[in-house]
Amino acid sequence: MANLQDLKAYLEEKKNKIDETLKKILPISKGYGRRVIEAAHYSLFNGGKRLRPILCLMGYELSGENSDEILIFAAGLECIHTYSLIHDDLPCMDDDDFRRGKPSCHKAFDEATAILAGDGLQALAYECFTHKELLKKVNPVNLLKAINLISKASGFKGMVGGQMEDLLAEGKKGSARRLKWIHEHKTMALIEASLVSGAILADLNKSEIKTLSKFGQNLGLLFQITDDLLDILGDENLLGKPLRSDLKKKKLTYPALFGVEKARSLAEDLAKTSLETLTTFGERAALLKELIIFILNRVN
Amino acid sequence: MANLQDLKAYLEEKKNKIDETLKKILPISKGYGRRVIEAAHYSLFNGGKRLRPILCLMGYELSGENSDEILIFAAGLECIHTYSLIHDDLPCMDDDDFRRGKPSCHKAFDEATAILAGDGLQALAYECFTHKELLKKVNPVNLLKAINLISKASGFKGMVGGQMEDLLAEGKKGSARRLKWIHEHKTMALIEASLVSGAILADLNKSEIKTLSKFGQNLGLLFQITDDLLDILGDENLLGKPLRSDLKKKKLTYPALFGVEKARSLAEDLAKTSLETLTTFGERAALLKELIIFILNRVN
Repeated sequence: MANLQDLKAYLEEKKNKIDETLKKILPISKGYGRRVIEAAHYSLFNGGKRLRPILCLMGYELSGENSDEILIFAAGLECIHTYSLIHDDLPCMDDDDFRRGKPSCHKAFDEATAILAGDGLQALAYECFTHKELLKKVNPVNLLKAINLISKASGFKGMVGGQMEDLLAEGKKGSARRLKWIHEHKTMALIEASLVSGAILADLNKSEIKTLSKFGQNLGLLFQITDDLLDILGDENLLGKPLRSDLKKKKLTYPALFGVEKARSLAEDLAKTSLETLTTFGERAALLKELIIFILNRVN
Repeated sequence: MANLQDLKAYLEEKKNKIDETLKKILPISKGYGRRVIEAAHYSLFNGGKRLRPILCLMGYELSGENSDEILIFAAGLECIHTYSLIHDDLPCMDDDDFRRGKPSCHKAFDEATAILAGDGLQALAYECFTHKELLKKVNPVNLLKAINLISKASGFKGMVGGQMEDLLAEGKKGSARRLKWIHEHKTMALIEASLVSGAILADLNKSEIKTLSKFGQNLGLLFQITDDLLDILGDENLLGKPLRSDLKKKKLTYPALFGVEKARSLAEDLAKTSLETLTTFGERAALLKELIIFILNRVN
């Protein structure tokens, strides 16, 4: 059994380890080209929760192994997530001037630098995923499988495709099918891949990976629906951005399509299903279970 | 020995194989998210020479192996190159409306779609690099090493850093040191990595890889200087873009800093050094030698 305090302590510990790892892999250099690294740093160390890398560590820990061994891999997932945030905020995309209470990357720097910072962070992610220190502990074929999974989850058939459709859906009459497709691709795919990649690195068996994959999907969707709800019900100070920005942009979201109550009830159903899916892992999944409750009730 | 005809036939054959491979890995799908895949297709099949993937195949073939085995890996290099062209053309970057005689991606589609097409192509590159069919022939540790090399060559310490500095140098008083740094990072790094990654996949020995690396650097610099020269001396119809665009943007280039004659003489010196470097490979490098002459005299 784990409680909320255990989870919070765990999240804090892992966040610090991920941050240290990121700082080591992307030191601010002197000389030419420095500006784009500064911009990447600015966005990378802007108070992110490190959910994706932590999910990767949690997937790995289901095997009983020490996840410190794959910190550099997990850190790569944060690079992908951060690149996507930088590009999403651009004027021609979601046009968000603020991110977690600070000017977004293209406001703090400029558009060209922000685009390049995102591009460089995506490359850095794969530098992390293929770091030679991983070979001490991880089977190289498993490593290649995990990278392949993440590349698909973040590309045209995943996150990038989802962001495209999200933009196209703005201000249009939405359908539940379209909304589900967008959320599955834009958010769910990388969250699922984060958790599952950790399990692949730990060499969990096929049936366990299948279960985790299903769980990761529910978790990803839950995360997105609670995100949509926070845009309406949240606290601006805790969120670090203005409320109702999705509404203003006429984004296709669960509350917009179904109303707040129905969206909240959907989130609760997803949390329930997620908890059930985890029973097969028993006590090993205690923290993952607590994480579900934490996300259901999240305030930022 | 090889002659120009042999090289042209070789380049044509390999280009077709790379194109086929790219079409298989990125089919135009139906349904949601299709637009961004169409944009990626548009830029990917716009008459590129496929230099980087072909260099990868040539590096692999130095071992005597059949490079058909790594076509999917080589194709990934073209995805990286194409993503960089799409992003470089954006209004906030080089602001180029044409690319190879056709509207650039953001003109044919729009800025958001072009950014996403580039992002998706970078992810697709790593999907190619980790494709399971590569494991039939290639040692997985070598595969990871090659991917790591490419991720570095295309990231902050390579192509992305070079593009940043290239933008910062526009209209400023340039130095030879800064110009060299930009060219080494923006163009040379990925060209070198393309060739060397093929050699790593083929398990060439350390000393051969070191030689190839040196050769790749000279080739990359040669390629960039001839590119700079074509902007002044080239044929608009063959280039598919207006002449003197570097001059108009006050880009820091070799002809701009040293004059056309000195730049041309630098290119000839680089070609000579490159040919000398290759002698260690003997007849195995016949096509690579011919390629140097071809690039020195290129018209597009």
